Amino acid sequence: MIRKGERNLITDVPGLKVGNAEDHKIRTGVTVVLPDKPMAAAADIRGGAPGTRETAALDPVSLVDGIDGLFLSGGSAFGLDAGGGVQAHLKAIGRGYEIAPGLPRVPVVAGAILFDLNSGGDKDWGDEPPYRALGKLAAEQVGLHFRLGDAGAGLGAVAGGYKGGLGSASSVLPDGTTVGALVAVNAVGSPLMPGSDAFWAWPFELDGEFGGRRPMGPVTAAGLPRDMKGRVQSGTNTTIAVVATDADLTRVELKRLAIMAADGFARALRPVHTPFDGDLVYAVSTGRRPIDEPRPLAVLELGSLAADTLARAIARGVYAADSLGPFRSYRDIFAR
Amino acid sequence: MIRKGERNLITDVPGLKVGNAEDHKIRTGVTVVLPDKPMAAAADIRGGAPGTRETAALDPVSLVDGIDGLFLSGGSAFGLDAGGGVQAHLKAIGRGYEIAPGLPRVPVVAGAILFDLNSGGDKDWGDEPPYRALGKLAAEQVGLHFRLGDAGAGLGAVAGGYKGGLGSASSVLPDGTTVGALVAVNAVGSPLMPGSDAFWAWPFELDGEFGGRRPMGPVTAAGLPRDMKGRVQSGTNTTIAVVATDADLTRVELKRLAIMAADGFARALRPVHTPFDGDLVYAVSTGRRPIDEPRPLAVLELGSLAADTLARAIARGVYAADSLGPFRSYRDIFAR
Repeated sequence: MIRKGERNLITDVPGLKVGNAEDHKIRTGVTVVLPDKPMAAAADIRGGAPGTRETAALDPVSLVDGIDGLFLSGGSAFGLDAGGGVQAHLKAIGRGYEIAPGLPRVPVVAGAILFDLNSGGDKDWGDEPPYRALGKLAAEQVGLHFRLGDAGAGLGAVAGGYKGGLGSASSVLPDGTTVGALVAVNAVGSPLMPGSDAFWAWPFELDGEFGGRRPMGPVTAAGLPRDMKGRVQSGTNTTIAVVATDADLTRVELKRLAIMAADGFARALRPVHTPFDGDLVYAVSTGRRPIDEPRPLAVLELGSLAADTLARAIARGVYAADSLGPFRSYRDIFAR
Repeated sequence: MIRKGERNLITDVPGLKVGNAEDHKIRTGVTVVLPDKPMAAAADIRGGAPGTRETAALDPVSLVDGIDGLFLSGGSAFGLDAGGGVQAHLKAIGRGYEIAPGLPRVPVVAGAILFDLNSGGDKDWGDEPPYRALGKLAAEQVGLHFRLGDAGAGLGAVAGGYKGGLGSASSVLPDGTTVGALVAVNAVGSPLMPGSDAFWAWPFELDGEFGGRRPMGPVTAAGLPRDMKGRVQSGTNTTIAVVATDADLTRVELKRLAIMAADGFARALRPVHTPFDGDLVYAVSTGRRPIDEPRPLAVLELGSLAADTLARAIARGVYAADSLGPFRSYRDIFAR
């Protein structure tokens, strides 16, 4: 059977730490994932409005076979500065890709942003956006525990008609192999079944980890849901995620893991992958556990688990969020 | 509100006809979609084992902006011959891309295959597989009505632990714009929620079109389902689909439609998009109805509808199937 990991966080994957940093005056934040050594990575982009850094380097035909960090950031395209802050921290602790002795090591940090410029707060930051500093701070603060909901890249997030947030979950196979997911949920679409307080992700819920509500009575999902973002807010989205495993997958296998994990978006949000979402999944491996032959069967099982775990993480991100300004939380709206 | 079209088939999209042809001795078949004039098309491939013809020509940067036909075929890579049969029919009726006066017109026919070489029947066809002839026959037989279930490309299909088949559905928006879907369901994954007779696609069902079953009692989708194909059958899959609309979408917009429609796979099958599935969605437009500005919002609505309609078509394909040889149908297994 599948069970949750000890923390039910992506940090249940051995070798990974996560840090959040927020600016509450601006109402934005950054979340950083750091591995204890360079990790293999791939990306799958399915949204129509992505904002990314170092995506090209993640293509399996490109050179660098291990990255030093990942970030998820608010701030729309301004948030891409977060990568520089993460690099500054990594340089300070001596990490990075070694080109040749005597030359500086180059920390390779990939990341993606979401749109939260409508989160309220003071966006009048002048010449220099806060994201470089937030990225550095988040990297300095990484650990095994981190907050969900209105934290890190989830602080300014909104998911359909509900306050969005940072979510995470983990799954452990009987042999001990772990799959974790991390996501900042800021979708145009709804995380709930129409006319219901049940998350779309309910069939995947473990131990009531996002409130345990189930669909009651008839549900008909026909036409766009009423609790998605309206026309005015249609450009204010993007859900960005990381799935991680300790299974020793190649970069090509991680690409398949990312593709299958993206189905977790489809099972947890509706609509999703729209022209207005920059939806993206990173897949990373710490490479600690060999996988069994035939490898494609192992990838199938891990990919299915990654989709399930990511769907749970999405629901947990919305469930953990607190109301902020005009954006009311799931728990406030559906309090019993 | 969304309603089904008159036939609840992809042929509710004005300008499209569909034909099936089968060889019951070999237990395989071909399904062909023909437009009344060249149609814009795009493709989104998400499976790990695709088999396709003319995929490169569907890239929006390639020249030909309208295709003359699409096919879905059994036969694994042998089935790609079906395209030649469809071309033979189109040439006979004077259709095709005109390069220059005096030169032959070139019918542009794209298509994809699924693996049904394990369907039973006599596969000892010698030098020449049956698919060219079946493609031609299916093209000659196109009409507004066609059979679902064990028909056309669905004849030899198996969906997880159930007989698979050919499915179709349609949706009509209040303004009359129509979205249709056609699919041959041959997935490694299951179309049903674990431990249940409810299709994963149940929230999207209209008017009991696939039996009306709903999940009763607890459902926990953790780990791989027991009613998926086992290890021995793991290489015997692929779900291939067409979504169509009369909305006048560009080829780039159709690419987004195909991407969003692929979420219908995720909502109707689990696992899906595995290393062993050649999963693919074509999106086509007959171009008869202008769409409103802002166009990305119209694409969002049509894309969401395409995903819903395709999820319904998948469930209808399995629901319509009859038991064949060792492959038992949903209706036989869950007869009440």
